[in-house]
Amino acid sequence: MDLELVRELAQESDSKIVLFVMDGLGGLPHPETGRTELEAAYTPHLDRLARGSSCGFTVPVATGITPGSGPGHLALFGYDPLEYKIGRGVLEATGIDFDLQSSDVAARGNFCTVDAEGRITDRRAGRIPTEESTKLVEALRGISIDGVQAFVEPVREHRFVLVLRGNGLTDEIADTDPEKLGDKPLAARATVPSGEATASLVNRWIAEAATRLTGKLPANMLLLRGFARRPEWPSMPKAFRLRAAAVAHYPMYRGLAKLVGMEALTVGPTLEDSIATVSENWDRFDFFFVHYKYTDTAGEDGDYDRKVQKIAEVDEAIPALVELNPDVLIVTGDHSTPATMAGHSWHPVPFMLRSKWARADACESFNEHDLDRGSLGTFPAKEAMTLAMAHAGRLRKFGA
Amino acid sequence: MDLELVRELAQESDSKIVLFVMDGLGGLPHPETGRTELEAAYTPHLDRLARGSSCGFTVPVATGITPGSGPGHLALFGYDPLEYKIGRGVLEATGIDFDLQSSDVAARGNFCTVDAEGRITDRRAGRIPTEESTKLVEALRGISIDGVQAFVEPVREHRFVLVLRGNGLTDEIADTDPEKLGDKPLAARATVPSGEATASLVNRWIAEAATRLTGKLPANMLLLRGFARRPEWPSMPKAFRLRAAAVAHYPMYRGLAKLVGMEALTVGPTLEDSIATVSENWDRFDFFFVHYKYTDTAGEDGDYDRKVQKIAEVDEAIPALVELNPDVLIVTGDHSTPATMAGHSWHPVPFMLRSKWARADACESFNEHDLDRGSLGTFPAKEAMTLAMAHAGRLRKFGA
Repeated sequence: MDLELVRELAQESDSKIVLFVMDGLGGLPHPETGRTELEAAYTPHLDRLARGSSCGFTVPVATGITPGSGPGHLALFGYDPLEYKIGRGVLEATGIDFDLQSSDVAARGNFCTVDAEGRITDRRAGRIPTEESTKLVEALRGISIDGVQAFVEPVREHRFVLVLRGNGLTDEIADTDPEKLGDKPLAARATVPSGEATASLVNRWIAEAATRLTGKLPANMLLLRGFARRPEWPSMPKAFRLRAAAVAHYPMYRGLAKLVGMEALTVGPTLEDSIATVSENWDRFDFFFVHYKYTDTAGEDGDYDRKVQKIAEVDEAIPALVELNPDVLIVTGDHSTPATMAGHSWHPVPFMLRSKWARADACESFNEHDLDRGSLGTFPAKEAMTLAMAHAGRLRKFGA
Repeated sequence: MDLELVRELAQESDSKIVLFVMDGLGGLPHPETGRTELEAAYTPHLDRLARGSSCGFTVPVATGITPGSGPGHLALFGYDPLEYKIGRGVLEATGIDFDLQSSDVAARGNFCTVDAEGRITDRRAGRIPTEESTKLVEALRGISIDGVQAFVEPVREHRFVLVLRGNGLTDEIADTDPEKLGDKPLAARATVPSGEATASLVNRWIAEAATRLTGKLPANMLLLRGFARRPEWPSMPKAFRLRAAAVAHYPMYRGLAKLVGMEALTVGPTLEDSIATVSENWDRFDFFFVHYKYTDTAGEDGDYDRKVQKIAEVDEAIPALVELNPDVLIVTGDHSTPATMAGHSWHPVPFMLRSKWARADACESFNEHDLDRGSLGTFPAKEAMTLAMAHAGRLRKFGA
């Protein structure tokens, strides 16, 4: 369903929706035991919840597509990730929770090395450690050109983000990275005639930055890619008519949530912190996105046992979540991260929705095997919000 | 699948299709017994049918969307309700089975009250009973302006329908309802320059109607909304190449069926009447839409026991339907109306299709719990007709 239709049908209500996301939740059987991480974990509370819920699997982007964190979450927020795309520069800024303004232009930067003639000798400057590039970033701060501010922030290793803030800027600027060793960095070039002022400004910034980097180690030059502006999407408060809060500790997820108009609440690193934050802000919001990162981290590390343990830790916190008594409680993931694959995967993601109006189905426990019997089947993750809205009494009838 | 593709592939055949719609069929568990209406009802014949059918659930409009009767039925007839929309005036005329011609313009009317200065004091004239507004409607009949006929028919309470019949009329006319107490009714206004002749005509009709209502009780004025013409859709006979009959007693469903080119047969109020009508007309048609209203009525009234009883009554009539031996027999609903919710809902709708070419699946009985194991899964209701056509041998191969 498109957001235009949601906006037409959405109505306000006193009901509360909690979307609890265990990052990278879905798994695959352990080659020795044949059990997935969810099957192996001790999860009495999640299992009880499953017995009272409508269950199934979501497909985050499309069948067979492995999602990044951005698309995986956007889908859960109701934004079709194939339609709502985030420019590279904005994604980078979002990843560090940089507070992008709508007129800002962001680009992803690489520190690189060039020889005496200015030819690129290493496009990533040997993947220098984050601490090193942080020092280089310090050297680039505070350059202002014709009243346009240039913010520079470290990301990770050789990567940084550049944000230009001023009037009349455009993101229609081609990459300066020639993607070839031995070539010189390209000048910033406008891809539309109206972009020439911004291109010239970027070039003056690069010139000043290059001067400041001259003779520096381990990198003496930079490359810019993916110029982009913050997308102008219908915000969750507007499209869904609800006050939406993000309870997420990691910058990337806070940034994503803010892109769709959620308020990112301040929260500590533990799940107890998260639930306390939801509880304290219960009256201020209608919708809470609660993010739990460590299932994904364990999966990415290929650490099956740790992922099992992290799931069990979540299970212990479930009663506190249930006690808040939201009208709709969804427990799911943004994508699968099977420990056996040590990375994100395309596998459909376990999903359950508890509500007074949700029909409980044949699922006895919350794992991939049982969820095959769920009443929701396997459905697009972008429909999760519509389901939540319906069960929360927040969608009017379509047609008479 | 879109109708253009259906039309390309459709072929004629001697086969018969019966689509039996139990209005508002889908339900939710009773809070005490945990059983849905279908689970609680004694349905040996429906259960036997399920054991020989392909089973599943339909989504009438989109996930989470609660359909009105119009969209719910259009989907079952193969018309995507998000694409095939009916204007308000036409829906109102359809709801009373008014025989709209393609050039007619219909509007929904409200009787209202105005004070001595003509300012609205009640937009619905206190929701006057239907008998009262029927008398007011009588006073408005027979106004003819420049050869354009104006039909007026009562609907329910303060609502009536106005249909203008003549040459060169347009529906590009804005509402006359200011939707605000204390304002005067607006003059009809064309929303495109070519609509001015029609707007002027509507205003002269309103002036004459107002004169006739002067001093009347309980309403002395009227408001018009939702000017619309009958949509020009591909008819079922053309798109599906079949002779289609509607066996429906209630005006709304007869009207909807006629909008897509079905012939609405005369039929009594009972299910026995319906089946007899199908039987008598067996040779004249290829497709029969049979409508049963009372499951929905009971659900809307929040009367769980009566809905259970109505389902059991349908069950008793199933053998007579099966005896007709259609090549394809579908039993389903247009949407869910759980008695616990006392209204339409978004929940997927029980569906079964019996045919020589349908693979029977694991469903032992016809209820939501068992249907979770159905081979058809949960699919868009607009695909039901394509499934029926395929099983009836009425769709040619696509591509070589």
